[in-house]
Amino acid sequence: MSRATQGDGEDIFGALRQTLRQFAQERDWDQFHYPKNLAIALSVEAAELLENFQWVSETESAVLPTERREQVRHEMADVLLYLIRLADKLNIDLAAAAAEKIQLNAGKYPIDKARGNAKKYTEF
Amino acid sequence: MSRATQGDGEDIFGALRQTLRQFAQERDWDQFHYPKNLAIALSVEAAELLENFQWVSETESAVLPTERREQVRHEMADVLLYLIRLADKLNIDLAAAAAEKIQLNAGKYPIDKARGNAKKYTEF
Amino acid sequence: MSRATQGDGEDIFGALRQTLRQFAQERDWDQFHYPKNLAIALSVEAAELLENFQWVSETESAVLPTERREQVRHEMADVLLYLIRLADKLNIDLAAAAAEKIQLNAGKYPIDKARGNAKKYTEF
Amino acid sequence: MSRATQGDGEDIFGALRQTLRQFAQERDWDQFHYPKNLAIALSVEAAELLENFQWVSETESAVLPTERREQVRHEMADVLLYLIRLADKLNIDLAAAAAEKIQLNAGKYPIDKARGNAKKYTEF
Repeated sequence: MSRATQGDGEDIFGALRQTLRQFAQERDWDQFHYPKNLAIALSVEAAELLENFQWVSETESAVLPTERREQVRHEMADVLLYLIRLADKLNIDLAAAAAEKIQLNAGKYPIDKARGNAKKYTEF
Repeated sequence: MSRATQGDGEDIFGALRQTLRQFAQERDWDQFHYPKNLAIALSVEAAELLENFQWVSETESAVLPTERREQVRHEMADVLLYLIRLADKLNIDLAAAAAEKIQLNAGKYPIDKARGNAKKYTEF
Repeated sequence: MSRATQGDGEDIFGALRQTLRQFAQERDWDQFHYPKNLAIALSVEAAELLENFQWVSETESAVLPTERREQVRHEMADVLLYLIRLADKLNIDLAAAAAEKIQLNAGKYPIDKARGNAKKYTEF
Repeated sequence: MSRATQGDGEDIFGALRQTLRQFAQERDWDQFHYPKNLAIALSVEAAELLENFQWVSETESAVLPTERREQVRHEMADVLLYLIRLADKLNIDLAAAAAEKIQLNAGKYPIDKARGNAKKYTEF
């Protein structure tokens, strides 16, 4: 199965897109799901994810206690679901967008300049 | 191809995970990629996505001009890439987490109570 | 000068509120300054502030290089300005709200329970 | 009382700074209050503020129900408190930073160019 079939709902993004469409339709939620509102919701979920790392050190964050990790897992799912919902509303192909962005990043962060430093490409 | 193959890199999450691993290794970036830092980065990208809707009305947000939509598309890709990178570092299966979260949401938001309103389940 | 004069524009919040009102009026920006949009803008500025700490360790964050600190200083100002503008639009007295919240926090985090740990009060 | 006395704790920022210092000391929280962590906390509070506007239209956001407005008020206080705490840790004068930023914004957004449009200054 090639990625070219992404649009037909057989891959993971397509499957989730369909499920979320039905979920919203059954609840008459499309009236709220403007891209602006979905972008807010996504940002709020990203912050709820981040909240789990608020008072945790970098090294501690790599070995989360079970309960904390489960919370993180749920918030990550929320981010993904809103991302897929927003992509659906804007008719954006997430897989293609991600592939394109990786190409762009490879250009912005050539290995020899980026190696071992975390500077933004505008600061090279 | 079943979702059981998610771990072997043949699906979209697996493929991107592998690409991002190599991207980081080539640049010696694993030293910066603590889950805490990746969660910050994801949250910052979500805000950059949101920034595009800042002064746009709800209805306008559904019909973005080409340039704006392209910007949105790139920011959504950034969110996805950090989400996949974070999932890799925490050994989280995003597809399984999303499926589980949808089940949870169906329980929190039964159709008869949730229909046509945007209240949080805790406010029903 | 007592805090009771907060409303008459003589203290720092009142002075900034007046300046921002005039700034918006001169540019005919009130049409965009719905509380919803101002809350988005505030959140975006908070993320721009946070971006400065993205790949910086906790200890490094306490001793920022001059240029970075200056950037942080500007983003903090942006957060404050949107906070004051939002408070103006919602007719909220920030000084009174802050005083009240400190009282609430003192109740949620009694010294004997909160000492030396960063748990949320719901986790005591 | 002039703004020049800002440093001596007699104005609102100074007073809150002192209160928050004591609050943290009594709870032995300075060990957690790295600027990085405070910037995360501020960003999380800004998102909790924003969450209140998630499914609310722009016009609705200008006339919040009492309970919602009270929630917004508390979250705004949280943002302010973390902002003041972060400013203290980085030794930043918020009042001076705000005054300076307004000057910068006046230069970036001249009245004739900015009037009636919400474009970013980089897009003029």
